[in-house]
Amino acid sequence: MEFRIETQDTRSEARTAVLRTAHGAVETPAFVAVATRGTVKALSVDDLREIGVQILIGNTYHLLLRPGPKLVAELGGLHRFSGWEGPWMTDSGGFQVFSLGAGMEHGVGKIASIFPDEEGVPRPKGESLVKVDEEGAWVKSLVDGSWIRFTPEEVIRWQRLLGADIVLPLDECTSPFHDRAYTERAMERTHRWAERALEAFAKTKGLGPNPEQVLFGIVQGGAYEDLRRRSARYVGSLDFSGFAIGGSLGRSKTDMYRVLEWTIPELPRGKPRHLLGIGTVEDIVEAVMRGIDTFDCAAPTRMARNGTLLTSDEESFRIHIKAARFRKDEGPIEEGCDCLTCRRYSRAFLHHLFRSGELTYYRLATLHNLRFMVRLMGRIRETIRAGGTLGLGGLVGG
Amino acid sequence: MEFRIETQDTRSEARTAVLRTAHGAVETPAFVAVATRGTVKALSVDDLREIGVQILIGNTYHLLLRPGPKLVAELGGLHRFSGWEGPWMTDSGGFQVFSLGAGMEHGVGKIASIFPDEEGVPRPKGESLVKVDEEGAWVKSLVDGSWIRFTPEEVIRWQRLLGADIVLPLDECTSPFHDRAYTERAMERTHRWAERALEAFAKTKGLGPNPEQVLFGIVQGGAYEDLRRRSARYVGSLDFSGFAIGGSLGRSKTDMYRVLEWTIPELPRGKPRHLLGIGTVEDIVEAVMRGIDTFDCAAPTRMARNGTLLTSDEESFRIHIKAARFRKDEGPIEEGCDCLTCRRYSRAFLHHLFRSGELTYYRLATLHNLRFMVRLMGRIRETIRAGGTLGLGGLVGG
Repeated sequence: MEFRIETQDTRSEARTAVLRTAHGAVETPAFVAVATRGTVKALSVDDLREIGVQILIGNTYHLLLRPGPKLVAELGGLHRFSGWEGPWMTDSGGFQVFSLGAGMEHGVGKIASIFPDEEGVPRPKGESLVKVDEEGAWVKSLVDGSWIRFTPEEVIRWQRLLGADIVLPLDECTSPFHDRAYTERAMERTHRWAERALEAFAKTKGLGPNPEQVLFGIVQGGAYEDLRRRSARYVGSLDFSGFAIGGSLGRSKTDMYRVLEWTIPELPRGKPRHLLGIGTVEDIVEAVMRGIDTFDCAAPTRMARNGTLLTSDEESFRIHIKAARFRKDEGPIEEGCDCLTCRRYSRAFLHHLFRSGELTYYRLATLHNLRFMVRLMGRIRETIRAGGTLGLGGLVGG
Repeated sequence: MEFRIETQDTRSEARTAVLRTAHGAVETPAFVAVATRGTVKALSVDDLREIGVQILIGNTYHLLLRPGPKLVAELGGLHRFSGWEGPWMTDSGGFQVFSLGAGMEHGVGKIASIFPDEEGVPRPKGESLVKVDEEGAWVKSLVDGSWIRFTPEEVIRWQRLLGADIVLPLDECTSPFHDRAYTERAMERTHRWAERALEAFAKTKGLGPNPEQVLFGIVQGGAYEDLRRRSARYVGSLDFSGFAIGGSLGRSKTDMYRVLEWTIPELPRGKPRHLLGIGTVEDIVEAVMRGIDTFDCAAPTRMARNGTLLTSDEESFRIHIKAARFRKDEGPIEEGCDCLTCRRYSRAFLHHLFRSGELTYYRLATLHNLRFMVRLMGRIRETIRAGGTLGLGGLVGG
């Protein structure tokens, strides 16, 4: 893997770069489309190429449950199996250790009051489906209820078999409701896991379909400045090819931006920085200014399926297609959007498809929302290259 | 509308023709893709063009419930609203009068032991949601449970507003378990409705978005030879632009073929003949030989969604993608198929998508099954033009 910074903004940490993998290059800042089980929900690989998606992220936990890394390896790895021959990342399953564990217990996502339902409503609390110990984590299968052993070594082996271009080590993502003491202990354990992952990664070189695979480290530390700085310095000192920022990002957007301000300066400048699981328009712009290169987030595609379509015509950047005001609206989702959906279909027809529960709706909505993200990232790169000011006004729409 | 016969087979009733509508031409024999609510489930209009679909059929009952003919007319009619600017048919809702009525009461489809579940299992019996009288039928809404009045006149008015190129009159489709006396009474009522529909159609000329719209008649008469012949002669004598064969087709495939042998010779040779709701490979070949020009059937698309994929590699023309034997199968659904799905994806990946319930699966499966039907119809036309022998061996695969 090669990472070449092309433009460094002088007034912020924003930068453009090219990340070269064995399966193609990614121009950054970039949005990584979520393909949990090997496909972006409702889309084909031709759709992804058509809308300009550069890179996908699969999920090790979900792919472990079905169809299993061994089978994927036998069929030539994730690239060949899925038909997406461009760059792939896989997440380690660490986020599932959080969301099925502390996330369940505390009834929250990675930002206390915002995620995962995006409406500020905390999730109902439930029983933890995870047990973490020094060796790794036991995680309950959502398919058959059995307990599966996750260790840093196993997670590397699974990802070697899947064969993504960029893989991540097992980490423990804490909850915004964990106290400082727990967050610190979990962070230190994650650091020990990071070293074990690096060792396992070196030992498994040659295993699986992708000899060019690289491993990124994950920074933890919750919303505590000293912990974040320590974690970034420590993980940043290890021999990772890039870094992901994970874990609890606090209780508000402001908390999240501060976490980035503490973390980024402690990381090596020359390596890529990925922000895990964040992807609203506003957050992306703010995070790029603080030095983030890549993002993955299920929100744009999940929102599409729930009827929420992205558009710069609205202050909130979204409309809900179910609303009665779209019943007779002959315009496209967004004026000037070049996606298949906006070229062919009216809001009125999409309203009808959504209300009727037609399968056609899901693809058309997902195509649009992902195209919106791809165009947003393109405008962000152009603005950085031109030395312009990053801000919502100039970036979105127009 | 113009219907020009191009080749008449000398050894059977098979023929090729071109049916010209205001929205384009259809080469027949042709398969009419089912787009009940204005879309083929899981596909876009670009998908339909890409796989060579020529004409769609929407459903007046379903479109009446949502979004309503008035709204569709305000938005320019079905063509503009749906984005499919090629030829459209609409079914009258007569089949819903059957399937929600006698079909429910008797627990059957239009062939007693085969449809609608295609596995020979009769449906559970239920309460009729239909009341038929001389004036028309009361049909219960599946959306809000209210009773809706269907009359020959209203059904024409709704279809004028929808604006399809070819529309059908309200008819009463009887069940294979109705006796001769009931079938005869229902047929005679359907004949009176046919005349009322013609009159209503003439009176509403100019209403709605499609001044070039034409009306086909529907032949009824169950599986009784004298009734079918009488119905075909009578309906065939009226001023319809073409004819559809509807209603109960008996208790077996043999019954169905006999119904066609009685009906077709009584109809005017120069007008198109549509067979309602039939569409297995075997039935299509048999029906073409008996003089049918067009078919509509939900089976290919519904089977796709249920995991049944069409292929000429199997004697049954189908595989079930869920079967364990496809887990590691790197081949396409069908060798030599040129559809997007077969060009890009393995049976193993489709098996994974289906088992995972991924939305992507539904489009890929539907694309393939419809492309299979389109190719089948193309080979049928070529064989007729070349004076070859119509038969399953030569037509399918190869």
